[in-house]
Amino acid sequence: MAETVAVLGAAGYAGAVAAALLHRHPHFELAFVTARSDAGVPLAAVHPRTRVPLVLEEYDADRHADVDAAVVAYPHGAAAPVVAGLRSRGVRVVDLSADFRLHELATYEEWYGSHGAPALVGEAVYGLPELHREEVRDARLVANPGCYPTAAILALAPLAREGLLGDVVIDAKSGVSGAGREPTHGKHFVSVDETVTPYKVGRHRHTPEIEQELGGAVRVTFTPHLVPLSYGELVSCYVTPTREADVRALYEDAYAREPWVEVVEGPPGMQEVRETNFCRISVHGDERTGRVIVFATIDNLWKGTSSQAVQNLNLMFGRDESEGL
Amino acid sequence: MAETVAVLGAAGYAGAVAAALLHRHPHFELAFVTARSDAGVPLAAVHPRTRVPLVLEEYDADRHADVDAAVVAYPHGAAAPVVAGLRSRGVRVVDLSADFRLHELATYEEWYGSHGAPALVGEAVYGLPELHREEVRDARLVANPGCYPTAAILALAPLAREGLLGDVVIDAKSGVSGAGREPTHGKHFVSVDETVTPYKVGRHRHTPEIEQELGGAVRVTFTPHLVPLSYGELVSCYVTPTREADVRALYEDAYAREPWVEVVEGPPGMQEVRETNFCRISVHGDERTGRVIVFATIDNLWKGTSSQAVQNLNLMFGRDESEGL
Amino acid sequence: MAETVAVLGAAGYAGAVAAALLHRHPHFELAFVTARSDAGVPLAAVHPRTRVPLVLEEYDADRHADVDAAVVAYPHGAAAPVVAGLRSRGVRVVDLSADFRLHELATYEEWYGSHGAPALVGEAVYGLPELHREEVRDARLVANPGCYPTAAILALAPLAREGLLGDVVIDAKSGVSGAGREPTHGKHFVSVDETVTPYKVGRHRHTPEIEQELGGAVRVTFTPHLVPLSYGELVSCYVTPTREADVRALYEDAYAREPWVEVVEGPPGMQEVRETNFCRISVHGDERTGRVIVFATIDNLWKGTSSQAVQNLNLMFGRDESEGL
Amino acid sequence: MAETVAVLGAAGYAGAVAAALLHRHPHFELAFVTARSDAGVPLAAVHPRTRVPLVLEEYDADRHADVDAAVVAYPHGAAAPVVAGLRSRGVRVVDLSADFRLHELATYEEWYGSHGAPALVGEAVYGLPELHREEVRDARLVANPGCYPTAAILALAPLAREGLLGDVVIDAKSGVSGAGREPTHGKHFVSVDETVTPYKVGRHRHTPEIEQELGGAVRVTFTPHLVPLSYGELVSCYVTPTREADVRALYEDAYAREPWVEVVEGPPGMQEVRETNFCRISVHGDERTGRVIVFATIDNLWKGTSSQAVQNLNLMFGRDESEGL
Repeated sequence: MAETVAVLGAAGYAGAVAAALLHRHPHFELAFVTARSDAGVPLAAVHPRTRVPLVLEEYDADRHADVDAAVVAYPHGAAAPVVAGLRSRGVRVVDLSADFRLHELATYEEWYGSHGAPALVGEAVYGLPELHREEVRDARLVANPGCYPTAAILALAPLAREGLLGDVVIDAKSGVSGAGREPTHGKHFVSVDETVTPYKVGRHRHTPEIEQELGGAVRVTFTPHLVPLSYGELVSCYVTPTREADVRALYEDAYAREPWVEVVEGPPGMQEVRETNFCRISVHGDERTGRVIVFATIDNLWKGTSSQAVQNLNLMFGRDESEGL
Repeated sequence: MAETVAVLGAAGYAGAVAAALLHRHPHFELAFVTARSDAGVPLAAVHPRTRVPLVLEEYDADRHADVDAAVVAYPHGAAAPVVAGLRSRGVRVVDLSADFRLHELATYEEWYGSHGAPALVGEAVYGLPELHREEVRDARLVANPGCYPTAAILALAPLAREGLLGDVVIDAKSGVSGAGREPTHGKHFVSVDETVTPYKVGRHRHTPEIEQELGGAVRVTFTPHLVPLSYGELVSCYVTPTREADVRALYEDAYAREPWVEVVEGPPGMQEVRETNFCRISVHGDERTGRVIVFATIDNLWKGTSSQAVQNLNLMFGRDESEGL
Repeated sequence: MAETVAVLGAAGYAGAVAAALLHRHPHFELAFVTARSDAGVPLAAVHPRTRVPLVLEEYDADRHADVDAAVVAYPHGAAAPVVAGLRSRGVRVVDLSADFRLHELATYEEWYGSHGAPALVGEAVYGLPELHREEVRDARLVANPGCYPTAAILALAPLAREGLLGDVVIDAKSGVSGAGREPTHGKHFVSVDETVTPYKVGRHRHTPEIEQELGGAVRVTFTPHLVPLSYGELVSCYVTPTREADVRALYEDAYAREPWVEVVEGPPGMQEVRETNFCRISVHGDERTGRVIVFATIDNLWKGTSSQAVQNLNLMFGRDESEGL
Repeated sequence: MAETVAVLGAAGYAGAVAAALLHRHPHFELAFVTARSDAGVPLAAVHPRTRVPLVLEEYDADRHADVDAAVVAYPHGAAAPVVAGLRSRGVRVVDLSADFRLHELATYEEWYGSHGAPALVGEAVYGLPELHREEVRDARLVANPGCYPTAAILALAPLAREGLLGDVVIDAKSGVSGAGREPTHGKHFVSVDETVTPYKVGRHRHTPEIEQELGGAVRVTFTPHLVPLSYGELVSCYVTPTREADVRALYEDAYAREPWVEVVEGPPGMQEVRETNFCRISVHGDERTGRVIVFATIDNLWKGTSSQAVQNLNLMFGRDESEGL
């Protein structure tokens, strides 16, 4: 019988994609969609593309815990107590926020402030299946990675494993959906159009996740840029390797059996992964400087968030990892 | 009396902007505009925005040398012999191509192939007024910088002068006009829209110019990316400094008296310099890694090419550097 | 057993989408993909998003007729003889070109010139299932509608049927993929970006199709505009009705049982139908003038071309009309 | 001696452009810039492109009336009382709002609600110099036209004058800056990108202005569409003429001596008028239907608003109409 799933925070971009994917999933049954500001409105009225025939409901901790699993699409800070409530009622959770991604509570507090459910931090599994597939299978709480970390970690993990990361500069380019649905001056069409905007220079909160998952041995410079497009993300990674290595072979080995990572020749394009769970990666040597340059691209709302959440749910419930994707 | 100027290759984007600027210049007189493919057509028919009431002519080495100066907007290789012809007739030249930018002939040959007028290489002045103002005043042949080098060199020169460039990664983002007007698959709207495309990874020909003008002591990794917009360029520069320094003060000192360089607090935006001769720069420290991050933005067809050509012409003919800009 | 299908002309945008849809279709088997210019190259190298693991082949009239059906994605004029060849070998055809859309040969010749296979004109069925479902089921040759006519006819058919079309102005807005993949000045990113371009004013070849399918009683003014986006099409139709009528009810009745037409309240958006077979329509009265305003939007490469071709194939082979869509 | 001018509401897009134009105007002196929300902030911090070195001030009815003229860039309703205050202190006003554009108070009230300064309605001159140049010269209060009416009226006036407007459909396409600077869901980049959105169908408030200035004899259907670009506007006008006429000659006669209207052959493009005071117009016949199709394009913030305000100020103070433009 189908497991039931609720999506909490389904009026945002990520929640809406998660709801759409679960609605058409051959196994899971989308039971509830909730939202604060748009409660009472059909999800399909807010996000017509989803064509999900459910009405957004105000979150009710009891009613909406009557499911097998929940995808929580809340901002960090707001997510932790809701996740704790769901876990206490036995609901398995994929949390899209940052609240359970960092293993070290101190690191979380340094970057985000005090934590709303510190007792659960130890239980959470970092939900990047390519790195933690087996733990995800057994997880009750999966901390779904941020969109930038998904691309950056997949881009750099083969080098990290071999201890090849001498230094790392990550220059990331993201579509505007990555900044969320709330209207602001910075997301006004006129502000974004015909320009590129670096932001949170030297202090983006995705940095510690990336460092954690690369093994903690290297400090990365991570600079995101907003580019004039809606969906998609490209990370350009510059690495001084600690020694000579057949880097290309490392990548092909690392990802040969991964269904959702494609190692390609030329630099990958966002349209190639648009509305898919794929991450596309290319690896290049800069002969003159000895640096390695790695590009990785994903759809920030799919592999960067919500299709990866479904990939994790599939693993957590013993389904084929790619079901419904 | 007004000096007369010809623009050769005025059907391209850069030539057209140069022609428009010279047409409305209070001192210079735009005498001729030439083009191969569109000869016989009014420039304003090909580039309506210019509103230049001249007809594009097929280039005639004698007729079009009857001017005081010429702006040559030809591809590299094609430019050198035409420049040589103009110089032999006493015409002062601002060459927009790469043919005379590199002081070392061997470096030119390594990146571009054989040179069409090697005897003139020694005479050419690299036309970045902020670095070479006095030489430009006396120059007969100015090699106008490439668009990426203009931004990158202005972004890094204050560090270079102090010997602070430990290593350099330049991640550049450019609008499509920088790739020229000839239609190709890569410039088709559908290819560019909603994606970001790295190109010429590890081997872009602007690299040696940048290294030359930064003093030759550092090898840079330079990676350009095509972004879905028409005009403008942003370079994001990552530097490991060789020692501690008050970097912000260095930039303010370096550019305090420069009319066309603005050092600003936050990351600069392309719209702030659109259709101007300004370069806007911001400097940031990444405390966690010790890196310095510098952003610089220009309009690739203005400060990146054609308004800088006019700035150079002004200097060459003893005019106010900013006249007509 | 699965019927086999070939896609001829699969290197273009429409052919590539048709191939991708047929490749993942649960019933049909994509047997061949052909192309002139890219023969020998994997389709996935030209159009990575398709992920079709077939190599583009040079068209061979015998080898590629060894299928049950073919989708022909050739320009008008080039299509007719190839379609004739396929038909003579018993292959059922969905032709994406204009060659078999017009019932009157004289009309074809007036707008397109001489016809390459006039004997087949009488046999062809106009492949808009919402108007001609039963004929499509029995057809051997389906003339798939143009993208503009698909939207315009669906927008106006409920009024046409009732004789309500007093006059008709259609102002259409299309993404650039509608203009094809061949690079031209007009499709250069810089030409399209930040502007709207009317084209073929008063003489677009889709006009006679629209008039034919609206019953031939009204002459329409049809003006397409290129807008700065890649995929999608909106037609804004202005009608002076011949008499009072409950127009909204007409539309709801007309499309209540249509799986792929959605009548909505507010003006429909292109993102709501992106990469789907849906046409979304809204109907509005302009009380001050008595005019009726109808908007219809489709994805020009899906319902406007290739998913409609699959819809037609499903009907032709007795499958569920929506299979694989 | 230079006349002084204040711009009230300079933090919006239109006010900022007006301030920038007046700041660099060779004659007028920009004395004050005011804004509600950003008071205390330099205008150049909110709109860097202006490079205006003035600080936005909270509006003070006395202090800011110490000027020769004011440009009022307030929303309708809010403008009227401020304009009345300025007029009572003898300040000449160009009002960018709709408050004084309609001669009939009843029409204003029907479309906008009650009027804040009805006594001044009779005094105001509709500030389209091409139609009302002489009245503008003597005006003390100029009601600057809306952006859509500027383009639509210039597109249709030559036909209106000759009584040729049998019926009129205006399908307008506008960049997002026309919708103002306040962030909303509808102006979020993701909402606008890759789609076209009709809005205020059958009830846009610019309709009565257009009808008034076309002589009041025809009711127009006017439908604006938001297109994914920042600046610029195109109106596509469809007219059934009341009789045969040499329409092209009408336009050439009408605009032969107008410095800021260009009649061109092919459909005009927004980039051709970007950041200029030009309106570009083309006229086409649709032979099959007998309709006349007229396209007109302007920069919505320049000829559509703020450069036209400067054009009006020039006339009001006896300057050359084109000074500073």
